[in-house]
Amino acid sequence: MKIGIVGLGLIGGTYAKCLKHYGYHITGIDHNQETIDYALNNTIIDTGSTTAEGYLGDLDIIFICLYPNDTIKFIKKYHTSFKKGAIISDVSGIKRNVVFNLDFYNDPETFELVFAHPIAGSEKSGIKHSDKAIFDGANFVITPLETNTEDALGLIETLAKQMGFKNVSYLSPKNHDEIISYTSQLTHIIAIALMNADKKGFSTNKFIGDSFQDLTRIANINDTLWNELFFNNKDFLLRSLKQFEDELGKLKSALEKKDYDTLKQLMQSATEKRRKLQ
Amino acid sequence: MKIGIVGLGLIGGTYAKCLKHYGYHITGIDHNQETIDYALNNTIIDTGSTTAEGYLGDLDIIFICLYPNDTIKFIKKYHTSFKKGAIISDVSGIKRNVVFNLDFYNDPETFELVFAHPIAGSEKSGIKHSDKAIFDGANFVITPLETNTEDALGLIETLAKQMGFKNVSYLSPKNHDEIISYTSQLTHIIAIALMNADKKGFSTNKFIGDSFQDLTRIANINDTLWNELFFNNKDFLLRSLKQFEDELGKLKSALEKKDYDTLKQLMQSATEKRRKLQ
Repeated sequence: MKIGIVGLGLIGGTYAKCLKHYGYHITGIDHNQETIDYALNNTIIDTGSTTAEGYLGDLDIIFICLYPNDTIKFIKKYHTSFKKGAIISDVSGIKRNVVFNLDFYNDPETFELVFAHPIAGSEKSGIKHSDKAIFDGANFVITPLETNTEDALGLIETLAKQMGFKNVSYLSPKNHDEIISYTSQLTHIIAIALMNADKKGFSTNKFIGDSFQDLTRIANINDTLWNELFFNNKDFLLRSLKQFEDELGKLKSALEKKDYDTLKQLMQSATEKRRKLQ
Repeated sequence: MKIGIVGLGLIGGTYAKCLKHYGYHITGIDHNQETIDYALNNTIIDTGSTTAEGYLGDLDIIFICLYPNDTIKFIKKYHTSFKKGAIISDVSGIKRNVVFNLDFYNDPETFELVFAHPIAGSEKSGIKHSDKAIFDGANFVITPLETNTEDALGLIETLAKQMGFKNVSYLSPKNHDEIISYTSQLTHIIAIALMNADKKGFSTNKFIGDSFQDLTRIANINDTLWNELFFNNKDFLLRSLKQFEDELGKLKSALEKKDYDTLKQLMQSATEKRRKLQ
C-alpha cells in the first residue's frame, strides 16, 4: 500500500513519521525543496517531490495535510489525477466549509474522500518539529459522508490507531465545528487575550508559575492558519465566546458583591466538571 | 540549624522534603495526626507534633505553610513563643493583607518575619502529593519589610535556592499583589469560567486536545484557599479581569466585522509577547 502525504509541515511530517515507522511506503509532496530534502535525509519519507503531477496516480491513500482553503484548492485541482479507488483524507480543523466544498467530488467508483481531524498539534510548526509523541493518545474525529463506504472509513480509522491516536469518533461536520469552537478555538482566543492583557510587562520569567505558562503556551500562534479556522467557524466561535463571557461575568459579579458562597459554588462546579475529564 | 514547618500540606510537605533532602533537621507541626504519621513514616520530617506548644522555642527558622488567614492567626497567637533571634517566614499567595496584619510584630531583637511567596503549586493538595519537582526552577518572591536585616533576607533566599527555586525577586506587597492578580489569579478565574461554559458536555475525553487540558487543569481548584486569595486581592483582580475582558472584546469585534487584519495583528502581538517568555 502506497501512501502519499501532501504538505510536510508539523502535521504532515508527523503523519509521515508515524506511518513510515509502521512500515508503509511514503511519498511526500511539498512545495519546498528544502523540506523534501530534510524529509528524505531523515528517512521520514521514501520518495519526495515538489510537484504532485506524476505521483498522484500511483498512490492508494493520500493525506492532504494543508490549511483548509489550500486543501479545497488541491482536491479541486487534482480530482481527475487520483488513482481509481484511492482514498483521500484531510486534516482540517474546521469541517463544514471543507466538506461542503468537496463532498460533490466523492464517488467511491472513482476515489473516496474521508474527512478527518486529528485533534493534535503544537505551538511550533514545520517538519523539524514533527514528532510521533504529538499523536500519542490524542483524539481523532472523522466526519463521514453518506456516500462513504465502511471499508474506507475503517481503513482511515485503522491508520489513525496505528499512528497512535486513542479515540476515533464520528461526528457530523456541524457537530464537529460546534464542539471544536469550544474545546479548541475558544481556548486559543483566551490565550491570545490573556497574553495581550499584559500592559505592564508583568509576565516576565520572574513572576509567573506553571498556570500562566500552561494558559499562554498556545498564544504563540500561526496567524495565517488560525485566521482561516476562526473565520470559517465564526458563528459557533462567537457563541462559545458569549458563553465564556457570561461565566466570567458571574465570577466578576460574585467578587464585586463579596458573595463568598456563589464564588465557592462556581469553583466547585468547575472542579467537578474538570475531574470528570481525568 | 533546626527548621520547623507549620502545616504539612502540599506546600509545607514540599518545603519539608526539599529541606530534609538538603540535610536540615526538620520539625513538622500539623493538626492532623495522620499527616504527622505519614511524614514520619516517609522520613519527610525528623520530629512531628499536632501541637505547636513546646516546639516553637527550639526552632531557628519556622515556615508557616498555612492559608493566609490562618497564617495571620498563628503568628498573632504564638508571637511570644518563638526562639529569640528566630526567623519566621510564610508562603501566602497574597501579601498586602498578611504583611499589614503582621509587620507590627517584626523586631529583629526578638524574632524576624520574612514574608515570601513560592510561586509554585499543583491542582492536587495534601502531603501525599508534595514533590520536590514542584519547586524545581520555579519563581520565589520576597516582600521585605523596612525593618528586615540583610542576614535574614539572605538566609531565606539561600534556603529558597537550596529548595530548587530559580529566581528570587524582591517586591513590595502592593507590587506583588498587582502582578499576581494577573499572572496567577486571573488565570484561575479564566480556567473556572472556561470549564463552566461547557453547557453541552463538549469537553469529554473524546473531543479535546492538549490546549483544553492545559487551560483547565487549574479549574480543579481548592475553593477555600482561593476564596481567601481572590477576596484579599479583589481590587487588583477586578482590574486585571477588566483588561482581559477588553482584549477579548477586541478579538470578538474583529471576528464579527470579518476584520482579518486586526485579528492577525492581535495574534501577532500575543505571539511576540509569548515568545519573550521562553
